[in-house]
Amino acid sequence: MKKLGDTNYISHLSIDCVIFGYEQKELKVLIAKFRFGKGVWSLPGGFIGKTEGIDTAASRILKERTGLENIYLEQFRVFGGGSRISDSPYKETLEAELNRFDAERFDEAVTQWLTSRFVCIGYYALVDIHKVNPKAGELDEYLEWRSINDIPEMIHDHREILTVALDALRDHLDQKLIGFNLLPDTFTMREVQELYEAVYSRPFANNNFQKKILDLNVLERLEKKFTGAANKAPYLYRFKKEQET
Amino acid sequence: MKKLGDTNYISHLSIDCVIFGYEQKELKVLIAKFRFGKGVWSLPGGFIGKTEGIDTAASRILKERTGLENIYLEQFRVFGGGSRISDSPYKETLEAELNRFDAERFDEAVTQWLTSRFVCIGYYALVDIHKVNPKAGELDEYLEWRSINDIPEMIHDHREILTVALDALRDHLDQKLIGFNLLPDTFTMREVQELYEAVYSRPFANNNFQKKILDLNVLERLEKKFTGAANKAPYLYRFKKEQET
Repeated sequence: MKKLGDTNYISHLSIDCVIFGYEQKELKVLIAKFRFGKGVWSLPGGFIGKTEGIDTAASRILKERTGLENIYLEQFRVFGGGSRISDSPYKETLEAELNRFDAERFDEAVTQWLTSRFVCIGYYALVDIHKVNPKAGELDEYLEWRSINDIPEMIHDHREILTVALDALRDHLDQKLIGFNLLPDTFTMREVQELYEAVYSRPFANNNFQKKILDLNVLERLEKKFTGAANKAPYLYRFKKEQET
Repeated sequence: MKKLGDTNYISHLSIDCVIFGYEQKELKVLIAKFRFGKGVWSLPGGFIGKTEGIDTAASRILKERTGLENIYLEQFRVFGGGSRISDSPYKETLEAELNRFDAERFDEAVTQWLTSRFVCIGYYALVDIHKVNPKAGELDEYLEWRSINDIPEMIHDHREILTVALDALRDHLDQKLIGFNLLPDTFTMREVQELYEAVYSRPFANNNFQKKILDLNVLERLEKKFTGAANKAPYLYRFKKEQET
């Protein structure tokens, strides 16, 4: 990894990733326990190389933290309030601890750079939790999957960034269900409904839900799932191949 | 206006505005004839002050070019390919002409700054054409409203930025119709349909259209429009006040 600072990266512009996964009927987010700032948490993020495209940078950052490549990433909002860092209650703690932590790697110039104004481009990703090998970044102690209903205190405006990402995911779920890799290869309608209920944090009525999803015209119905009780066995579905939709 | 360059503005980060208006059944965009680059056109844009919020900067830029305040602006995408400027066929012409144009205002440092890599945050706005007083920026000859079906050659990736903005407007039209100020205070269903047809560049079937729009539940039906022929007079509509929707 390149040394932080303006020799290698564009100043004042960062990327934060909201990495969603789905497990045991819960929507989860991969967040990092910050090495600084008294155990506050942060979204995994990084910076943009001098000549690196922003989407390339986002994919690189995602790969560095999860080991995954070719993952669906979507820009959802830029966070650029003039005082989003300078007014943050974590700015001073961060400066003090960065200065103490590692005088060589985080020399004064790097610390100043890291705590200067940043405009943050938010990306969200949807990944298969079981394929992820979380890897802490330079500024992290460790990463952890946390339910969206159990998010700890986060640095700067990272909680807001997460909330806006979740709104964007909800807005896009119908449209992009097929690309989201949140379901196994074949699944029941009940499993789709559980996914929606986890993402929206609310129940959906069964009948309406099945119609709504089938109307999206992205699913193909397969044989019934073998459960031993043939009568009540639910159908299995899979996503249609792209050329068929 | 502040002198361009990194004394006053964040480097490598710009804002371009796609300003839509609606007139005579056509969707139009306010674009600038560039002072440089052999008459190529560009989207009205600008830069972000060192401590200025990005949304504030976008509103300021919009006001500088149109005279309008409190206009609905929406971020729709960041354009940040690593070589969007360096590979542009206009980069060299631009450098040469900037150097020739005004040695004082555009000294070498400013020219280098202007032709360095920029990540561009795209915003779109919807305005009432009749309230706009277009005002050329430092780099423009003049501004002009052009139909989306008659867009001239544009600098760098500005044509792509416009296309993505139009896609975003189409995606958002149902949801945000009420905020878009593209219709007069009262209007007929036919006028709403003409607006949709202009934005989507395609016809909509009358019956389905009326149902679709009424289902949005944002319109209030008023008395019939007086036309002299009472039988065929269309109803007038207006947007419900916010607390009623």
